[in-house]
Amino acid sequence: MTGKEKSDKKKKVLVLGGGFGGVFAAKSLEKFGRGTVEVELINNNNYFVFQPLLAEVASSSINSSDAVVPLRQLLTRVQVRQARVMGIDFKKKSVIVMQGSRMTPVELKYDEVVLALGTGVDLERIPGMADHALTMKDLTDAHMLRTHVIGCLETADVTTERVVKEQLLTFIVVGAGFSGVETVAEMRQLIRRALPYYHNISVDEIRTYLIEYAPRILPTFPADLATYATQQLKKQGIEVLTGVGTKSATSTGVALTNGATLNASTVVATIGNGPHPLVEMLGLDLHWGRIVTDRFMRVQGHDHVWALGDAALIPLSDNPQEDPADYATQTAQFAVREGYQLAANIMAKLKGEKLKPFAYTSKGSLASLGMSKAVADVYGIKLSGLLAWLLWRGFYLSFLPGFAAKFRVGVNWLLNAIMPPNLVQLRMRPPATRYIHFWKGDRVFEPGMLIDGFYTVIHGAFRLTIDNPDTGEHFEKVFGPGEHFGERVLVKSELRTGLVEALEDGLLLFIAQKDFTRFARAFPFLDKYFTDYIEKTFGGPEKAFAPGSTNQRPGKAAEEKPELAKTR
Amino acid sequence: MTGKEKSDKKKKVLVLGGGFGGVFAAKSLEKFGRGTVEVELINNNNYFVFQPLLAEVASSSINSSDAVVPLRQLLTRVQVRQARVMGIDFKKKSVIVMQGSRMTPVELKYDEVVLALGTGVDLERIPGMADHALTMKDLTDAHMLRTHVIGCLETADVTTERVVKEQLLTFIVVGAGFSGVETVAEMRQLIRRALPYYHNISVDEIRTYLIEYAPRILPTFPADLATYATQQLKKQGIEVLTGVGTKSATSTGVALTNGATLNASTVVATIGNGPHPLVEMLGLDLHWGRIVTDRFMRVQGHDHVWALGDAALIPLSDNPQEDPADYATQTAQFAVREGYQLAANIMAKLKGEKLKPFAYTSKGSLASLGMSKAVADVYGIKLSGLLAWLLWRGFYLSFLPGFAAKFRVGVNWLLNAIMPPNLVQLRMRPPATRYIHFWKGDRVFEPGMLIDGFYTVIHGAFRLTIDNPDTGEHFEKVFGPGEHFGERVLVKSELRTGLVEALEDGLLLFIAQKDFTRFARAFPFLDKYFTDYIEKTFGGPEKAFAPGSTNQRPGKAAEEKPELAKTR
Repeated sequence: MTGKEKSDKKKKVLVLGGGFGGVFAAKSLEKFGRGTVEVELINNNNYFVFQPLLAEVASSSINSSDAVVPLRQLLTRVQVRQARVMGIDFKKKSVIVMQGSRMTPVELKYDEVVLALGTGVDLERIPGMADHALTMKDLTDAHMLRTHVIGCLETADVTTERVVKEQLLTFIVVGAGFSGVETVAEMRQLIRRALPYYHNISVDEIRTYLIEYAPRILPTFPADLATYATQQLKKQGIEVLTGVGTKSATSTGVALTNGATLNASTVVATIGNGPHPLVEMLGLDLHWGRIVTDRFMRVQGHDHVWALGDAALIPLSDNPQEDPADYATQTAQFAVREGYQLAANIMAKLKGEKLKPFAYTSKGSLASLGMSKAVADVYGIKLSGLLAWLLWRGFYLSFLPGFAAKFRVGVNWLLNAIMPPNLVQLRMRPPATRYIHFWKGDRVFEPGMLIDGFYTVIHGAFRLTIDNPDTGEHFEKVFGPGEHFGERVLVKSELRTGLVEALEDGLLLFIAQKDFTRFARAFPFLDKYFTDYIEKTFGGPEKAFAPGSTNQRPGKAAEEKPELAKTR
Repeated sequence: MTGKEKSDKKKKVLVLGGGFGGVFAAKSLEKFGRGTVEVELINNNNYFVFQPLLAEVASSSINSSDAVVPLRQLLTRVQVRQARVMGIDFKKKSVIVMQGSRMTPVELKYDEVVLALGTGVDLERIPGMADHALTMKDLTDAHMLRTHVIGCLETADVTTERVVKEQLLTFIVVGAGFSGVETVAEMRQLIRRALPYYHNISVDEIRTYLIEYAPRILPTFPADLATYATQQLKKQGIEVLTGVGTKSATSTGVALTNGATLNASTVVATIGNGPHPLVEMLGLDLHWGRIVTDRFMRVQGHDHVWALGDAALIPLSDNPQEDPADYATQTAQFAVREGYQLAANIMAKLKGEKLKPFAYTSKGSLASLGMSKAVADVYGIKLSGLLAWLLWRGFYLSFLPGFAAKFRVGVNWLLNAIMPPNLVQLRMRPPATRYIHFWKGDRVFEPGMLIDGFYTVIHGAFRLTIDNPDTGEHFEKVFGPGEHFGERVLVKSELRTGLVEALEDGLLLFIAQKDFTRFARAFPFLDKYFTDYIEKTFGGPEKAFAPGSTNQRPGKAAEEKPELAKTR
């Protein structure tokens, strides 16, 4: 028998998703089934994210690369495929993925498939939240939050307008579960450590809010630990608002359910866990947004399909009630145990042996509060303060898969304790198009700002006013849905001369100047439309109140080729 | 006298640019002029980039954040402003900058201004190079190169098409100066260390090229060291092509001046140093693209304006000839000395003392070849191999400004020596619009690929062919400048059914599906245009050969909401 023939006889198990559940299922499957089972794990990123450390990445306590482990190094004997899962054909027993830079489709056959897709974020219920809030789900999020916070400090340090500075120095975290509490604590710590380097910002100017709809923070923790945590956060200068929800968000802040509005440039949403979009589309039975399985983690109504981790709803008894306590909880601890048991069950099935139901009792919970403080509830014992914090670090270090990762994180924790904070702002390219929400009275732009792009009204009404102080000319126009403003970026690229205000709550689609200009110029039809429009609406590109013609000019350089003046 | 009045009497010196020249000038100015001079440094990023270590970032030998130092931590007593310089009004003695997230203009008055803007990249002479090659000028570049290389390995590992795999595993560096040699060596090292984790790629499949137009690599080094370096690179499996230039580049490779074409997914250009765009626009005397100064670093024809570093052409004698050797060379060593001397000269001028001409002799040069090898020419002594490499590391470690940075880099070098390589691919958002060059015969897309966006022809001719195997229908259309294809992303978001080929060398503007769809849908006028166009050209959106209607489908999930299936 040749190697090829042998391998053809192996059963193929596909694991979709590279979080705790997927990784530990794949690892155990490979181990239990070596020689008889071929395991392949498919994930959109080539790395495993150690979620509990994301807040530390956001605060620069550790390097971005230390909170993640390359899947190939974690699963050296498993085939790892970096690809996007597009769908599953349960009848044909195949998964369709898109892979490569050209995104070509590939069909992968399986004998058994494991769904370990985790959860998604669903912020749609709060208008503006999805478009304006930062999230804390993956490495890119943590990295963006860090960059964003440092950017706010940079700008606040040189801003002379009081209102703008206040907004830049207000930081809001919505949701006070583990992730929210750890994020707000780490963010505050980053700011505190950074402030000595920002000479024009004093600590009294910083406002940090933690907002929770429930009556208290850390709802899954014992009440006395939550009280301790609240006190610690307050001691660090964090304002904890409980029993309050968020009603809407814009680029300038959030409106609360109690009628108040907080102006802030930074809003982090740790709420809104929803089903993974792919899970929603597979047509499986969902309950509370999770895939319904039996106690053996088999998906109801489908042979050869298994689910685990945060995506799955695994009953802990034969007759579960409408109570989350009757199901496996969505934590890393559970996912790891599920991965092990699921691998054992798949092997048992292939060998025709008896499957075992999943059973596990949580060993406890831990939440870091920054500043060498934490709260812990371990084997029923409650701890707080430094001891809990050391336990927190030790526990996660031991939990981090792979020796290299443990070592790197350990070293960086030590380095960070003795070194100044890393304030490098490695900026990422902003999206070319984005939706921007406005409240009535908000300003979209005002005279003197650099022209940044083109706006189309999705809903609401916006008024443009241009006043020429030299000639006394006045121009006014109201724009409704489908109408647009800012198209004069095609003609001149200088400063705004007009003021645009929202006459009611509204939504705009913004397109960055560079992308808009490239598109409009490449496309003669559109170019002509805008030329005609400018002629008709403003009386031509050279009209007195055309952008930049009456206001302060940014010098010769900017007039000619503004986009080139950017450092690459 | 109050503090405020005192500060009003201080002379204000603005330093534009935060590279070696700018940082050392600002540091010395603050030191020499404490109490009498107020120094402000303006830079687009909030960090200083230690250029010599960028290649190590690209190869994961050190963390991204270790090759940079936050300017505020380097210059604790200097005001640091993160802003984009838009222009200088030499008459009013003011610099106009744009700052903050809203990019508002601010005018900054100065008594003396120091131009330390470095150089830019100019790849326009080689068609396609600017749009397709990666560069190695700043931290983002190094980070992108690393991500790109790992991405090529990820895709190659699961690709079954031979031609595509070959292209993915071919890596080209253009230009064999310091940067080119160090980049190719580090890139090769990253790949070599990564390969054990990619089970389907063998080392024989990797092609790495170093391409240099001059007759030999490292033209500024002694010939025997360059010969040694060439041998070392060849030993590592790098193919060194000298006396050959690049004629054009596309997304699939480069055409060489000797008529050959190399298919490659990765092209790094370390050539094409040109003037910084702002320097070009200031209207100053330029020679070889550099600002002409006198021996005291004063800019000719302007009082109160100084220049140094790579942006400046500083004569080393009173009567310099048309020979680069008669001017300060563009290296960090020189820039540091220039910074010191320039600060002393500004102080001398303010005190009415005599200025000193700039004079410095290089202490030598070093180039790392990867694999614990380097070449060095120090105080006229030539070294190579391990000794030179240790000298290289020691030298740069000592040169790295700030103890924290030294320590971090040192620790990470050690960690890296004993740890597996970091293969995390932290992907960055691709640009929404980009220009893509094609050679005659190249395919833009082919049936079965995921629909990715909309294309407009800038120049050239492209032919779309759709064949419906079920019905035998055949559709063909040629598109010229100003025409477009791919607009059916607005109607269906599935797989391409058509084949588009370049009938001659050409250029397309690509707009990503998400951004194009948002724009077209928000803008009723454009939406109607495309609906009419699709009706007229293809006979409507439901035509048999409409995308996805005849070909393999990616399952239910992808059909409905493809963009949601992406992991965030």
